[in-house]
Amino acid sequence: MTSTYQRIVLATRPRGSVVPENFRLETVAIPELQDGEVLVQNHYLSLDPYMRGRMSAAKSYAEPQALDATMIGGTAGVVVASRNPQFAAGDCVTGMLGWAGMGVADGALLRKVDATHIPLSAYLGVLGMPGMTAWYGLNQIMHAKPGETVLVTAASGAVGSVLGQLAKLRGCRAVGVAGGAEKCAYVVNELGFDACVDYKAGQLETDLAAATPDGIDAIFENVGGEIFDACLTRMNAYGRIALCGMIAGYDGSPVAINNARLLLTRRLSLRGFIVTEHQDLWPQGLAELSALMADGKLKYRESIAAGLAAAPEALIGLLKGKNFGKQLVQLI
Amino acid sequence: MTSTYQRIVLATRPRGSVVPENFRLETVAIPELQDGEVLVQNHYLSLDPYMRGRMSAAKSYAEPQALDATMIGGTAGVVVASRNPQFAAGDCVTGMLGWAGMGVADGALLRKVDATHIPLSAYLGVLGMPGMTAWYGLNQIMHAKPGETVLVTAASGAVGSVLGQLAKLRGCRAVGVAGGAEKCAYVVNELGFDACVDYKAGQLETDLAAATPDGIDAIFENVGGEIFDACLTRMNAYGRIALCGMIAGYDGSPVAINNARLLLTRRLSLRGFIVTEHQDLWPQGLAELSALMADGKLKYRESIAAGLAAAPEALIGLLKGKNFGKQLVQLI
Repeated sequence: MTSTYQRIVLATRPRGSVVPENFRLETVAIPELQDGEVLVQNHYLSLDPYMRGRMSAAKSYAEPQALDATMIGGTAGVVVASRNPQFAAGDCVTGMLGWAGMGVADGALLRKVDATHIPLSAYLGVLGMPGMTAWYGLNQIMHAKPGETVLVTAASGAVGSVLGQLAKLRGCRAVGVAGGAEKCAYVVNELGFDACVDYKAGQLETDLAAATPDGIDAIFENVGGEIFDACLTRMNAYGRIALCGMIAGYDGSPVAINNARLLLTRRLSLRGFIVTEHQDLWPQGLAELSALMADGKLKYRESIAAGLAAAPEALIGLLKGKNFGKQLVQLI
Repeated sequence: MTSTYQRIVLATRPRGSVVPENFRLETVAIPELQDGEVLVQNHYLSLDPYMRGRMSAAKSYAEPQALDATMIGGTAGVVVASRNPQFAAGDCVTGMLGWAGMGVADGALLRKVDATHIPLSAYLGVLGMPGMTAWYGLNQIMHAKPGETVLVTAASGAVGSVLGQLAKLRGCRAVGVAGGAEKCAYVVNELGFDACVDYKAGQLETDLAAATPDGIDAIFENVGGEIFDACLTRMNAYGRIALCGMIAGYDGSPVAINNARLLLTRRLSLRGFIVTEHQDLWPQGLAELSALMADGKLKYRESIAAGLAAAPEALIGLLKGKNFGKQLVQLI
């Protein structure tokens, strides 16, 4: 067995957009395992928009990513050595081992998963944090009832695709917003949304109105900015908004809510949330998502970059909406 | 008995700020009472910020005020004639009889009140819609716990003054925002708030920080705009925001939420509401407020304009923050 592995650290903090020079690829020694620890070979690294926030020095809901330390990130892999009785070599696990070929973790921070019937990568998407994010927003914030219209931005992405499918299963009208005709066609034809608005087509307001003839009762917001403002104008009274992300502002652009007045006049509710703070609901949510997955009721799509060195460009692409479905890096 | 009364109608819709020419004083005949109807002599007219919204043609949560019709408004007065067995001449009642010396109403739209121990005007303030607005926001949206910091804008006004006093009674730290040293002194010294920030003093952010050393856990927002953005920066994680008004934008100025990102990163909840839609809770709320009033635990202050003809200027002043406490027009 090799005695080293590769990792990517944060070399510098971005000024505005993320650039490849913000990262540095390193080879480091595998540390010796302590009691209770597990050594994992990572097969997949999950890339997610929240990473952009962590790269800034400003404290957000979490501490900033430290410079010269392994970039934070969710991973799925296989145990190669264990000094923890709960894990054995060969076990498939997910964890937060970061942008690295291998990683050592306390067993308490790993989750054993069954990859015999479900692809390992799905545990970073539909059956992982993105899936739980959609499940939490729909169930805990949006309270969407059958017949209501639910809208989700970044609809072809890892979170949005699950959100819309869950809404459809509940009997809602599911409307997506995505960038480009190809993504929109996928959202409607493959995922089964009722409609999808292409925000790049240049007639956002007209298209939104056509896609939501009865208005919007609940929004799952991933993007913010102009798109959110346009969606607000379609909201019905007492609408609910799950605020999950504001990708539009992650590079430092302003993401004002210009139609804030509508929050009052339409008596809307809005709540920002971070799904990792609600671990108590993960078992319930993952059980429901797993059952739907087993029944073939949840479709998903992945954008897979090959090799750790491809991770920086893949993240940069993700932040610009270049991915199509869940963005992963395949490490092995 | 006279056969006519005076009223003020909406003559033209404002472009930007309200001007006196938007109104017209008229003398009209008292209509003959139909079965079930009650004729009321209005003693007090309530002026409230929501009136500005109704004066615009755009449909908000309610239909616009019709041109050439009596301006909408809450009133308190005395029954002078009745064809409704539930009401007799001499009864004190509140209703929505508008900017008028008298009014005819279906009995179902009037509320009999006891003015023997409590001044009739209080039923338009602490024990009326403004008081209920504060009660609803604090109890149904802000969920403020003892020891938490609660902030309210327009703190010396009809709603804000009740909000802060209710928060103090609950064991919260109550912080107000008001315009001018005199109002701020009243909010702290008379109403018993822990602190009050003068937004006209030119150092809003510094003063807010000093007044909220432990951050803000819940906001009751009446104003919107820059003040709200500044308050957002002081919010603690999981803070709650009751969005009651956006006076800053009632004349057409933009009222963007520029710090919208904080709604996400601090996992805030925000809900816009209109208290008149929650009539089911009025009996409970008014009973609580009445009990506190009887115990001398709710102080209030009124700005009283004399005579119906003074109503337009009084409303214009209210929208500019010139009132000090609940703005009323005394009609008799």
